[in-house]
Amino acid sequence: MALSSKVSGARVVFTPSGKRGYFPLGTPVLQAAQILGVDIDSVCGGRGICGRCQIVQATGNFPKHKINSKSENISALTDTEKAYVERPKKSLEQDRRLSCATKILGDCVIDVPADSQVHQQIIRKDADAFDIKILPPVQLHYVEVWQPDMHDPSGDLRRLREALEREWQLKDLRFGPGMLPSLQKELREGNWKVTVAVDYLGQVIAVYPGFRESLCGLAVDIGSTTVAVHLCNLSTGEVLASSGVMNPQIRFGEDLMSRVSYVMMNPGGDLEMTKVIRSTVNDLAVNVTTQAKRELDEIVEVSFVGNPIMHHLLLGINPIELGGAPFALATDESVRVMARDLNLKLHNNTRCYILPCIAGHVGADTAGMILSEAPHHREAITLLVDIGTNAEIVLGNNKRLLAASSPTGPAFEGAQISSGQRAAPGAIERVRIDRETLEPRFQVIGSDLWSNEPNFEKDTKGVGVNGICGSGIIEVIAEMYLSGVLSQDGVINGELVTKSKHIIAEGRTFSYVLSSGKHMIKVTQNDVRAVQLAKAALYAGIRLLMERMEIEAVDRIRLAGAFGSHIDVKYAMVLGLIPDCDLEQVSSAGNAAGTGARIALLNYKSRQEIEDIVREVEKVETAVETKFQEHFVNAMAFPHKVDAFPNLAKVIELPVETNMNDNSDTNQLRKKRRRKKR
Amino acid sequence: MALSSKVSGARVVFTPSGKRGYFPLGTPVLQAAQILGVDIDSVCGGRGICGRCQIVQATGNFPKHKINSKSENISALTDTEKAYVERPKKSLEQDRRLSCATKILGDCVIDVPADSQVHQQIIRKDADAFDIKILPPVQLHYVEVWQPDMHDPSGDLRRLREALEREWQLKDLRFGPGMLPSLQKELREGNWKVTVAVDYLGQVIAVYPGFRESLCGLAVDIGSTTVAVHLCNLSTGEVLASSGVMNPQIRFGEDLMSRVSYVMMNPGGDLEMTKVIRSTVNDLAVNVTTQAKRELDEIVEVSFVGNPIMHHLLLGINPIELGGAPFALATDESVRVMARDLNLKLHNNTRCYILPCIAGHVGADTAGMILSEAPHHREAITLLVDIGTNAEIVLGNNKRLLAASSPTGPAFEGAQISSGQRAAPGAIERVRIDRETLEPRFQVIGSDLWSNEPNFEKDTKGVGVNGICGSGIIEVIAEMYLSGVLSQDGVINGELVTKSKHIIAEGRTFSYVLSSGKHMIKVTQNDVRAVQLAKAALYAGIRLLMERMEIEAVDRIRLAGAFGSHIDVKYAMVLGLIPDCDLEQVSSAGNAAGTGARIALLNYKSRQEIEDIVREVEKVETAVETKFQEHFVNAMAFPHKVDAFPNLAKVIELPVETNMNDNSDTNQLRKKRRRKKR
Repeated sequence: MALSSKVSGARVVFTPSGKRGYFPLGTPVLQAAQILGVDIDSVCGGRGICGRCQIVQATGNFPKHKINSKSENISALTDTEKAYVERPKKSLEQDRRLSCATKILGDCVIDVPADSQVHQQIIRKDADAFDIKILPPVQLHYVEVWQPDMHDPSGDLRRLREALEREWQLKDLRFGPGMLPSLQKELREGNWKVTVAVDYLGQVIAVYPGFRESLCGLAVDIGSTTVAVHLCNLSTGEVLASSGVMNPQIRFGEDLMSRVSYVMMNPGGDLEMTKVIRSTVNDLAVNVTTQAKRELDEIVEVSFVGNPIMHHLLLGINPIELGGAPFALATDESVRVMARDLNLKLHNNTRCYILPCIAGHVGADTAGMILSEAPHHREAITLLVDIGTNAEIVLGNNKRLLAASSPTGPAFEGAQISSGQRAAPGAIERVRIDRETLEPRFQVIGSDLWSNEPNFEKDTKGVGVNGICGSGIIEVIAEMYLSGVLSQDGVINGELVTKSKHIIAEGRTFSYVLSSGKHMIKVTQNDVRAVQLAKAALYAGIRLLMERMEIEAVDRIRLAGAFGSHIDVKYAMVLGLIPDCDLEQVSSAGNAAGTGARIALLNYKSRQEIEDIVREVEKVETAVETKFQEHFVNAMAFPHKVDAFPNLAKVIELPVETNMNDNSDTNQLRKKRRRKKR
Repeated sequence: MALSSKVSGARVVFTPSGKRGYFPLGTPVLQAAQILGVDIDSVCGGRGICGRCQIVQATGNFPKHKINSKSENISALTDTEKAYVERPKKSLEQDRRLSCATKILGDCVIDVPADSQVHQQIIRKDADAFDIKILPPVQLHYVEVWQPDMHDPSGDLRRLREALEREWQLKDLRFGPGMLPSLQKELREGNWKVTVAVDYLGQVIAVYPGFRESLCGLAVDIGSTTVAVHLCNLSTGEVLASSGVMNPQIRFGEDLMSRVSYVMMNPGGDLEMTKVIRSTVNDLAVNVTTQAKRELDEIVEVSFVGNPIMHHLLLGINPIELGGAPFALATDESVRVMARDLNLKLHNNTRCYILPCIAGHVGADTAGMILSEAPHHREAITLLVDIGTNAEIVLGNNKRLLAASSPTGPAFEGAQISSGQRAAPGAIERVRIDRETLEPRFQVIGSDLWSNEPNFEKDTKGVGVNGICGSGIIEVIAEMYLSGVLSQDGVINGELVTKSKHIIAEGRTFSYVLSSGKHMIKVTQNDVRAVQLAKAALYAGIRLLMERMEIEAVDRIRLAGAFGSHIDVKYAMVLGLIPDCDLEQVSSAGNAAGTGARIALLNYKSRQEIEDIVREVEKVETAVETKFQEHFVNAMAFPHKVDAFPNLAKVIELPVETNMNDNSDTNQLRKKRRRKKR
């Protein structure tokens, strides 16, 4: 104190960065932080308007820093700050101060709370995923513009440019000509004070009269079945509202290939589909902004993921080339395009970022999944699988990444299954079959009870028992196999007709009846075949990539998408959808593609990252790999190679094999192993 | 010869560049030229398709180059070339060869004709103007693109990029997302051979299936009265067709200020005017492409000039701020904008370049005039004047340029003059008054006869004698002054009523009757006042700039625009519109603004040039210069300072002054000078 009153400056340490410096007494804390490159947010440039630059003085003696940070070593609360204390939003709490209004009067330690930093992080609930770092693609800058002067004529735009350079050191910004018509009005409405939104490429997106606090972005995931959006606060990453609807393109065809066929049969059909998908995004944007009480023109940035056909249709590209070999993408680059060029009714100058497609069957959704899961940041070899009509498969680690798509068909989505249906209330999603009696019990979506529990009928009265959804199909077939109803090569054992009323003859084949209420719900021999084809395709694709990578096992498996989130991984492994793996290391990645869209929306550096990764990914086209066919045939049986599933064998009793082509040595080995367990 | 047959290479000299090199025998001439950086055009990249790379071997002994350029030292005519000889267009004439098909077999001298160079020049008829150098803003590049390969999937766009880099060393080109929807079709239609139009900023404008030979550009001059366009071949600069119409905005107001008033009175009126001007440009584009038998989508580049209000309205900017002090432009930068964003129906990807405005009253038309006249390339001090409702004035040389606008009002355009009319058939444009009898004679537009010639009435029967146009007004008032009908301060001498029937009393003032046919055509005292106000405003503006530049005389004067092209500079000087100058050095610059638009269209480097110059120009706002008012008052009389017109005095008999404020010494001097002449 005696010391600091004599000297003309003081030592300041910022935490958590640890950056430190010596500043003249009277220096505003914000200025000191900016000189040291400490990450403190500010929109208003130190005018006490935005309330973003909050800090807390850490008082006390800090021997480590050799600083006694006394409360009198920073200036007293100013009127500006007092006004903040009473504000409902962005108020000052718990000893917080505005760093622009607080002056350094002596040595001090200043803590910058996480929410005052530009580069915030979003902690993800999913422990197996990395946190999301925020680096907003569009940032706000409040400026005061000089008024026009007849003695030194210059355009309003030039004086705005000068203000941005004077106050924010922003040079050579690009103003689209679309901004000119409204510029003069905005400057005068704001009485020459405006907030300018500038994107990471130096493009000015918007000029708002007066002070503006925050901006929104929209992350869009266009699936062939559903379209989902998240409205996010671009500064904090917070999801302000979410919404989703069925993709209305379904009326042109249930799955992707039938939509491409529609275009082939109906010239101009692509334009219809482009129109409906864009209009769906518009509807969803209205929905989420209404929910969050925001305006459409506050959305200044949009990110998109989608499979190649959705990607092409969104951009107005006829997807016909993707319908046949050589499956040529129009582009495998990321696309930056004006929202209004996609007929999106947001801010006139809003830009969209569309993640890159990887190959003809591996789209921007897979790029989003890679961005979200970041297998390239891990040493462990990760298998990422997103199962839909096609399964997108990514395999690799920080040294090498491979990607492919397998034509699984729609069986896992409940289509082409006699009692199949989409995941909706009343759909069977969990199944158990008694190993002895072959009696089934099941759960439907909308009820927590099993079908053999007393109140099940009452509890499901509203929804009924209507069919089997994807995860139910996996379980029932796996249970049929485990209980001996199905042979290893997928034949329903007709001899059991006499043993259980649940096995019935239908012509020359047999079916397993799950429920014979209002709707008879059963699994036919054809259903089993459909699932076998689907799972064999998926597994063959995975094997192909593992072979290409010269590995026999993977370290971890992440299952993405709606299907991946709902299936029991154990049953998926029983059926041989995925290779054997420590079950602890198999988990759901949720809507990884959608999360990837959100990351690309919130962190502009992630865009370069995914563009670089996508270029490096080794693309494997299953359609031209002769080995694929071989793997496919080998993968038809359940479980097609028991000895390849040591981890699975630890947790589940697998049937004795009946018709495998393994050489006898390995078979002996496997049998031994199973005997040991008993 | 003995020598060259032994060596494995040969010496080649290219003329006119003088570039020389030593090349292996068998090297194609085009390749040698490209290695040496010799300017030879090629669209097809040496495939013998475009016929652009024509050269002529100069045969004989060239001691200067130490080369005996024998005809056998280049390879014989190929079949490709023979096919060219028979082609109607781009055929090979007079010993011309295709440099891509011609191989070097020995020492030779190769001449590159002007029309084979990329950087051609347009020689202007106007001897006082610089030639136009061609540097096309968009150039064509023919490429062969690799077809998609499933084993190495990549987007069509990427393979197109790779072809452009492989064959033309063009890297990092920008493809707008608007190009994606048509790209795949174009590549397949052209069987993977396409011609790509790339602009000077690295933006790809168009991909044409197959080979494409040339492109068009449109230069547009939006005047408040007329809109004129030139369709140009972008490679040669040739004007393929021209067209012009009245600016339909006239229905919202004759002059600029009344159009701004219309906007003030009618909210949304700016949008109406924007709509009609854009639709006029569309109509003119259709007109010129039809004339030249071209398609609208061959226009890949458009340049615009116009005054600030036309500039703003074209861009959809409300011009209201230009209607009052401080006359703030929305922007004083050049603007590059998609043609479709201006609702122009050209190629979907066509870009427009709008020259920069200089100040609130000094527009892109003045920038065009500067570009066309290039006063900044001369040592001599040039005065450029474009007279309309406002007169734009530019003064200076290669060291310093000043610009201002003077509010001359519409008198010079025939408006606010009792018998005034626009320049059209039947309008009086030339007038002489007999110094003794005060009898007038005149010529009208549409006839070469003077009114006192025998067949005049017969010759003008179809058009009649309807009024006086701008140049006629200048002449009649100048002649009235020279014949003593007008005093130096602009009063019609009523005493002459008795002397000539052409002077008539009208209330308390007098008029001079030029013609009393079907329409009485006369010059009233009010008309004289209107012209005095207009010419005083113009002269005051010029004086202001001369004073600012600290000069008393200018070296040359160029009069631009329709009015400037038609007035007799001698009479303009008699009235004191322009300062005294050697009459040999006063000439018409034609439509300099329009020529500026054409230069900006054809030479992309000229854009940076005019942008730089415009920033350097010293803008003088006459409205805030107190000196302007003083000059204005001083300039009301005819000729307001006779001694300031020594050059004029050499060629015309000026009246003895009656009421000047000059000091008597100068008056004496002037009188002496006149006496000498007698």
